[in-house]
Amino acid sequence: MSHNSFGHLFRLTTWGESHGPAIGGVVDGCPPGIPLEASEIQTYLDKRKPGQSRFTTQRKEPDTVEILSGVFQDQSGRQVTTGTPISLMIRNVDQRSKDYGEIARTFRPGHADFTYQQKYGIRDYRGGGRSSARETAVRVAGGAVARKILDGVTFKGGLVQIGPHKINRDRIDWGTVDDNPFFCPDPSVVDFWSTYLDGIRKDGSSIGAVVEVIAEGVPAGLGAPLYGKLDQDLASAMMSINAVKAVEIGDGMMAATLTGEENADEIRLDRDGQPVFLSNHAGGILGGISTGQPIVCRFAVKPTSSILKPRLTIDADGNETEIVTKGRHDPCVGIRAVPIGEAMMAIVLADHLLRHRGQCGPGG
Amino acid sequence: MSHNSFGHLFRLTTWGESHGPAIGGVVDGCPPGIPLEASEIQTYLDKRKPGQSRFTTQRKEPDTVEILSGVFQDQSGRQVTTGTPISLMIRNVDQRSKDYGEIARTFRPGHADFTYQQKYGIRDYRGGGRSSARETAVRVAGGAVARKILDGVTFKGGLVQIGPHKINRDRIDWGTVDDNPFFCPDPSVVDFWSTYLDGIRKDGSSIGAVVEVIAEGVPAGLGAPLYGKLDQDLASAMMSINAVKAVEIGDGMMAATLTGEENADEIRLDRDGQPVFLSNHAGGILGGISTGQPIVCRFAVKPTSSILKPRLTIDADGNETEIVTKGRHDPCVGIRAVPIGEAMMAIVLADHLLRHRGQCGPGG
Amino acid sequence: MSHNSFGHLFRLTTWGESHGPAIGGVVDGCPPGIPLEASEIQTYLDKRKPGQSRFTTQRKEPDTVEILSGVFQDQSGRQVTTGTPISLMIRNVDQRSKDYGEIARTFRPGHADFTYQQKYGIRDYRGGGRSSARETAVRVAGGAVARKILDGVTFKGGLVQIGPHKINRDRIDWGTVDDNPFFCPDPSVVDFWSTYLDGIRKDGSSIGAVVEVIAEGVPAGLGAPLYGKLDQDLASAMMSINAVKAVEIGDGMMAATLTGEENADEIRLDRDGQPVFLSNHAGGILGGISTGQPIVCRFAVKPTSSILKPRLTIDADGNETEIVTKGRHDPCVGIRAVPIGEAMMAIVLADHLLRHRGQCGPGG
Amino acid sequence: MSHNSFGHLFRLTTWGESHGPAIGGVVDGCPPGIPLEASEIQTYLDKRKPGQSRFTTQRKEPDTVEILSGVFQDQSGRQVTTGTPISLMIRNVDQRSKDYGEIARTFRPGHADFTYQQKYGIRDYRGGGRSSARETAVRVAGGAVARKILDGVTFKGGLVQIGPHKINRDRIDWGTVDDNPFFCPDPSVVDFWSTYLDGIRKDGSSIGAVVEVIAEGVPAGLGAPLYGKLDQDLASAMMSINAVKAVEIGDGMMAATLTGEENADEIRLDRDGQPVFLSNHAGGILGGISTGQPIVCRFAVKPTSSILKPRLTIDADGNETEIVTKGRHDPCVGIRAVPIGEAMMAIVLADHLLRHRGQCGPGG
Repeated sequence: MSHNSFGHLFRLTTWGESHGPAIGGVVDGCPPGIPLEASEIQTYLDKRKPGQSRFTTQRKEPDTVEILSGVFQDQSGRQVTTGTPISLMIRNVDQRSKDYGEIARTFRPGHADFTYQQKYGIRDYRGGGRSSARETAVRVAGGAVARKILDGVTFKGGLVQIGPHKINRDRIDWGTVDDNPFFCPDPSVVDFWSTYLDGIRKDGSSIGAVVEVIAEGVPAGLGAPLYGKLDQDLASAMMSINAVKAVEIGDGMMAATLTGEENADEIRLDRDGQPVFLSNHAGGILGGISTGQPIVCRFAVKPTSSILKPRLTIDADGNETEIVTKGRHDPCVGIRAVPIGEAMMAIVLADHLLRHRGQCGPGG
Repeated sequence: MSHNSFGHLFRLTTWGESHGPAIGGVVDGCPPGIPLEASEIQTYLDKRKPGQSRFTTQRKEPDTVEILSGVFQDQSGRQVTTGTPISLMIRNVDQRSKDYGEIARTFRPGHADFTYQQKYGIRDYRGGGRSSARETAVRVAGGAVARKILDGVTFKGGLVQIGPHKINRDRIDWGTVDDNPFFCPDPSVVDFWSTYLDGIRKDGSSIGAVVEVIAEGVPAGLGAPLYGKLDQDLASAMMSINAVKAVEIGDGMMAATLTGEENADEIRLDRDGQPVFLSNHAGGILGGISTGQPIVCRFAVKPTSSILKPRLTIDADGNETEIVTKGRHDPCVGIRAVPIGEAMMAIVLADHLLRHRGQCGPGG
Repeated sequence: MSHNSFGHLFRLTTWGESHGPAIGGVVDGCPPGIPLEASEIQTYLDKRKPGQSRFTTQRKEPDTVEILSGVFQDQSGRQVTTGTPISLMIRNVDQRSKDYGEIARTFRPGHADFTYQQKYGIRDYRGGGRSSARETAVRVAGGAVARKILDGVTFKGGLVQIGPHKINRDRIDWGTVDDNPFFCPDPSVVDFWSTYLDGIRKDGSSIGAVVEVIAEGVPAGLGAPLYGKLDQDLASAMMSINAVKAVEIGDGMMAATLTGEENADEIRLDRDGQPVFLSNHAGGILGGISTGQPIVCRFAVKPTSSILKPRLTIDADGNETEIVTKGRHDPCVGIRAVPIGEAMMAIVLADHLLRHRGQCGPGG
Repeated sequence: MSHNSFGHLFRLTTWGESHGPAIGGVVDGCPPGIPLEASEIQTYLDKRKPGQSRFTTQRKEPDTVEILSGVFQDQSGRQVTTGTPISLMIRNVDQRSKDYGEIARTFRPGHADFTYQQKYGIRDYRGGGRSSARETAVRVAGGAVARKILDGVTFKGGLVQIGPHKINRDRIDWGTVDDNPFFCPDPSVVDFWSTYLDGIRKDGSSIGAVVEVIAEGVPAGLGAPLYGKLDQDLASAMMSINAVKAVEIGDGMMAATLTGEENADEIRLDRDGQPVFLSNHAGGILGGISTGQPIVCRFAVKPTSSILKPRLTIDADGNETEIVTKGRHDPCVGIRAVPIGEAMMAIVLADHLLRHRGQCGPGG
């Protein structure tokens, strides 16, 4: 058991605080012989990196990852994994010096300040300490490693809703998510979203969002009854991301409104005699085990709690007060949650791939 | 790691198939000295038991639980836990003999038939085998044990939506949930729901639902960053229940539509100088740690996959066919999911209570 | 984490007390499709069963195992594992009714009475309750399942020392262990041991012993650095057996007396160009990973603590007293530890086989 | 599950190779509010550090530890733990550049070269890579943190045998262990041991040893049946240390030679009415749970496998050859295993203290 580890055979343990010297993690259980360069991990970190548009925090973090262990040159000179733990470290650079007097003693509503203090009696209040979303950089790094062992699996993710504004699913073009600052797969809404979020931002407010992540090419058979269900571990993974308040698999909450015949994903054979499903209400998972269809997961991200609007609160000395969270913040943390969601899905799938191979073997 | 265990310090391991001789589970880690009688567990099993109204399966299972280990008479003659594993067993009684010829070889859409076969190459097809919701009786039994160590914590749960029909939240009266066959907390909709579900049932169809579960009296401080978050483990617990497709904490999916100032649960002091929150958008959890407010969780249950409507499918020999699932079934499995959701929440909280006490100690 | 589970991918969770209605366990993670009949498990239970000679306790327990879940008929009609948890139960039959007045309140030296009371504040004192070696029947049952997935691996085990009397290793004939009541592989000492142990028994005393267990045919590559070492898990497994006080791998304690050149197991090639080791000081494990040589493990079992000689002790009320443990007992519990040691080694190897396959795959 | 983590509630995960940029670890689960400075950890690292006498390797490593997370200034300005993961890193400094041509391809007998290659198909051969005892520096650092939460527990450890030469137990003076280069508690043998080990060293050979570690002040009640036994976890901990081949608790292997009456640790009351044991054959553990007596553990360390004597072996290309391991090495690695054994015992006890508190609570 560990409070700061995720996964079983493929396991990520993370450490670090927002304004400490560094953050990092250990990937344990990665198979040996997998080519792995820091630059491959960097690609995904760059996607999550702050400060890439006016819609994300202006904190300047290069988020440069170092691989400290677990790789070595193979006979052909490539750097590959060795099967031993892979230690990943990212130096914190832009811990802007400031006076923490206020947030040191005052609990920001919506943040973990109050609960950390209640639980531990002490907290590193600088930038939220351990509860800061800075930790998610390590998840993205770990997810980059996970992807390397998921041959044939591809991921796509994007923002499908911001505030009350949903995309039009008929216009989805996943190829466009990197062309806009929202990772939005519906290019027709981007201008509107920009205007909308500018309004939120200038107002000193923030807004929630919904992220959708899909994995294609996942073989049938991953997952396990009853407390090792693939959807269960995805729910756990996504809900572990900062600010996430809900997780859906396949039709999600809408499944409540379906009849049995609507919900049943009927099966036919394709020309090669392989099973094909005629729909995917299940989101690629039945009985906790993958069907071979795309794994579809969505999660709701609450609005950033750091806002310029004053909120009523108390301080650690038991006085009523109010607080305004000045400084850099993301008006919509849901945006940067997209690569994080993809990373967590990759980690879950990598773990289940190894677990399945362990129990059921090569032909399992 | 285990595919069939849940929890860490308070851990439930379950076993058994729908039509095997028995189902059961082992509760490990229960503190010693807790009074525990089988009759206390039975109370909760009776609530979940099939055949209690025309809206649940007519399978007749007394669901009588036996405690096989882990309890002993204390000096005052009460039966109490001893700190050793508590083995719980429920004999299967009504495994109606029938010809399984069809479902033995044919994959029922929406069920786990296809995926179990893909994963394991074999499955106990009788009544769904391991993937049957019969296993949830053991969860309810385990949850009954968990409740015993949660002094001062109370649970309430109910069906808040059936198909497209939601309750009116202004009319919620939790005291009425046991007065109707739906565990519905809004008595004003019961008649309408009865008529609606009768229609579904007579049509040989089924329908989804949404369950809400609330725990009150949970102390602040339970949960842990970052992969031991209380909401993360609740998401895992609820998503592990058969047919669940989505989990929400607090405002859940609606959090996506909120602004930062709407979402912030402001804090004041009560007359005794204790913190009080002015709202509970967070559902009682901030940064993965309980705030002391009610823990609020909802989950969507898909419609029963066993329906009398023919559905297209294939068989294990690779032939296209169609299937009708005759026999007893719940027209809305969401109903019986209510006590299961309560049980899972109790297990999560009991586990986190012990984990918190372990790390942070009596004064932590 | 669990206090009563062992193993990761292949995991045994046990429950039950000496004089409760039954004891049992759950094997989780067993691969599917493995033929498994209760009779195969029974064979090993019969080997451990009490009352088979005058040198073991006269408690009459048939130790009949029931498989309650996890198996099903395959297409050829054989009963095979399904990949779901295998629940094993053994009814307690000979819980001789007696007056527990004395041991209920008095701590027998050498037994766990004192420590259970200190830890839990309550204990099932009947026959030692949870701390009774009766639990080891479940280990033997679990080990029987583990053996089924270890193709090509064979086990041999025996008593190599009783009290101060060691076997002569030059006369070892493993084929004779079932021909004598000691599982002794040196037939030349059997008569002497019989006379010796008769003396101990008639004297109302007891004596310690050393058990050796060997697994042959274990492939190279099982185990993992640094806290998943094969020898580490064997040490854990053997030390978890009641009354065990020491564990040795290969040369064990004698390794302290060797020089580097003596200890080095040199390597040559056989006629087929395969590596062969010229010695096996390492006991088949280097760096925590199997070499392909026989895995050799020994463990010391302390004398039975239940003896007819009075011993000084205290009672639960804080009075000084003395105690004599009347009733049935094994004069040398080491004897019946032989099949238990084999079972635990099988469980460790099965777990590591699956773990290795998970991380390193078929060609790993 | 993790291959490179140890412990449950108090958990150490380590990473790093002998000649990589750094080694390190993450301590998860440490209670909050514990004063912790790097200098306190450094004290123990200095004790283990190489190059302190002619009897340990001449590799020059300052072994300077950095705390990268998990600590923060409390209100009084002290640096204390926060309850979040503590990341510890030690830079490798003296990775002497050399030609690894020979050991890159040739398997050194007694080392893990062969088995890592068999398992993973690749290994970092520089200085043994992950299998190097360099990793044990991280254990010592983790143990230093563990000690901080073990109020009132003191540790003593020393070398009690080198090769065939044992100390005289009647002359033990634990206060002298730091006065000699062997951590030997019997000052009367130090001169002889020096001469003896000089001979081994000059001969290019190496020798085994036995380490004894004792914890005093451990409260009764730590440990758990049946697979969470305190002695089981100690056995696992010690056997996980490089080169360890045997672990003993209390009388260890000698327990095999005792009668029941000799082995029984009788109990009396002291003047304050508290239980006192008249002997400690059990090594402070009964039924897997601590008695309150000193916890006594010994382990055998095999001779260093790196020796100047040529040994027969094969290379990775399947050729027979022989090898001499030049360069720096410890003639007796048992010496430096003393602080490592103490550290591992501290980690086991800290973990069990938290586990006990979790299950059994403050008054448990």
